[in-house]
Amino acid sequence: MILEQVKDTIKKYRLLRQEDKVVVGVSGGPDSVALLYLLHRLSKEFKLRLHIAHLDHKIRKDSYKDREFVEKLATKLNIPITVSQVEVKKIARSASLEEVARNARLGFLFQVARDTRADKIALGHSLDDQAETVLMRILRGTGLYGLAGIMPKRKIEKYTVIRPLLELRRRDIEKFLKQRRISSCRDQSNLEDIYFRNKVRNRLLPLLEKEYNSNIKEVLSNLSESAGYDYGYLNSVAEKIMRNWQGGVNLKKLLKLHPGIQRLILRLGIARVQGDLRRITFKHIKEIEDLILNRPVNSIVHLPKGISVIKRKNSLLFCRQ
Amino acid sequence: MILEQVKDTIKKYRLLRQEDKVVVGVSGGPDSVALLYLLHRLSKEFKLRLHIAHLDHKIRKDSYKDREFVEKLATKLNIPITVSQVEVKKIARSASLEEVARNARLGFLFQVARDTRADKIALGHSLDDQAETVLMRILRGTGLYGLAGIMPKRKIEKYTVIRPLLELRRRDIEKFLKQRRISSCRDQSNLEDIYFRNKVRNRLLPLLEKEYNSNIKEVLSNLSESAGYDYGYLNSVAEKIMRNWQGGVNLKKLLKLHPGIQRLILRLGIARVQGDLRRITFKHIKEIEDLILNRPVNSIVHLPKGISVIKRKNSLLFCRQ
Repeated sequence: MILEQVKDTIKKYRLLRQEDKVVVGVSGGPDSVALLYLLHRLSKEFKLRLHIAHLDHKIRKDSYKDREFVEKLATKLNIPITVSQVEVKKIARSASLEEVARNARLGFLFQVARDTRADKIALGHSLDDQAETVLMRILRGTGLYGLAGIMPKRKIEKYTVIRPLLELRRRDIEKFLKQRRISSCRDQSNLEDIYFRNKVRNRLLPLLEKEYNSNIKEVLSNLSESAGYDYGYLNSVAEKIMRNWQGGVNLKKLLKLHPGIQRLILRLGIARVQGDLRRITFKHIKEIEDLILNRPVNSIVHLPKGISVIKRKNSLLFCRQ
Repeated sequence: MILEQVKDTIKKYRLLRQEDKVVVGVSGGPDSVALLYLLHRLSKEFKLRLHIAHLDHKIRKDSYKDREFVEKLATKLNIPITVSQVEVKKIARSASLEEVARNARLGFLFQVARDTRADKIALGHSLDDQAETVLMRILRGTGLYGLAGIMPKRKIEKYTVIRPLLELRRRDIEKFLKQRRISSCRDQSNLEDIYFRNKVRNRLLPLLEKEYNSNIKEVLSNLSESAGYDYGYLNSVAEKIMRNWQGGVNLKKLLKLHPGIQRLILRLGIARVQGDLRRITFKHIKEIEDLILNRPVNSIVHLPKGISVIKRKNSLLFCRQ
């Protein structure tokens, strides 16, 4: 049953092709262990070549036990493995712990993908992770882009990250492991936003489930699915327009576009110089709109990561300091 | 200050034109009383002609007091008024009380607009109403359309409904009334979804405000604003496509479209025969997608309000029983 669901997700989002080489991120927690077993089961049908990647963040003293557990698993399933470690706490002086941990994790996965010449990187996020992420973003303030939540398939730099378990409930994943008597390590909470996420996971979602809608997680997951499609379409329209504007964002042309597309163009302009859209909120977009409509030429809006947006006479400049 | 904010909203969404004739729905509660005073203040600048409409739902025994209050207000401000009453409880045998009340209210407002040859109907919904509506829809399950929430300007049948207070906080409206020593009737909870809405208003939103984000209402209102723009754009694309498909929804052509647009076309197909999209959920759209992709020709999906969707060999039929 659970295998069929995963196959449905894979088919729906075209996550895998025949003979793909896939790096599987395995922390040792239930989700990633289930992911590994399920991909292992599918490896004949899809002729997959799997490679395990495990990063020890050294946040806990006994984190080496997780590493040993994953190494044994690799031996048992006869899958090659790359292990590395990073002392996140030591690096994380100026930047936030979450961001450092996230970058270290991604950097390591990309490195393994490069070294093993893999096509894809598979991660074990579940429907529950999706629901938490979407709800967190709603609570903090978001638009269509943020509602799309965790993408089932996403190109980051030149790597394709896939999440085959994204339509599975965590409880079903745990049931699967129990039935097959597959052991896993204690679930380590995601390092990102640990306090806020845990509050949403352990207090808010159970309350909403009990008092407001017993299907709240499915409903949030559906919302992110449909937002993902809607955003994908709008973004493709905006990208097509941007490709034709080689010289930058022309203000006259911009203001003639539909307001929904205008905002996406602004986001794309930022993403071009920043590399991504982290820490860009609705308020920043509103500020740039105010710059365009109401402020004099040569005014500047400063964005979080050292990006500035300058209003020229006929155009908008996005600069990195 | 509050008057400037209302003028900003009016400008942003082009709610009023010079010499508009506006029917103002006045229940007697704080929001609608403030709306009336604010429009009255603006009536010179915009050369507005105002007309008050008050409907007595007769849900409470002393509801005639609200009617008397609004009649006095009309005399005081020297604005013509139309009053009517309906015994919602008597009509509401088969249908739900919410739906009957809503239809009675809208029907009455349309009637007054017709009789007085008005251009617009103004209603007193606030940012707080918006936040409640968006949160309720998220909890029950929604997509982009539902997230757009209460529209600041919306054409219903041939009437344009405007909500000039939609970017004002309820507390600021109440402060304005207090400062000007304007009295109003006790706020009667909206008849729609009375139980669920009150739970969201009185329990969930205060909790989210205290524990998760003190700006939760603004954040939800911003979300609905951006969803409104995004939906507006997508809908205009889908409507353009539909206009070219005079013969109904061609399956081959449909499947070639972007998935986000496909879903909007399905919604438009339903709206064409049902008149609106009430009670249509994400699950229904998914069912129709399953019909298209996986079920044999002549299969049918039944929707809540007596609408059926039939799969023909090359096309999709939307029928009303």
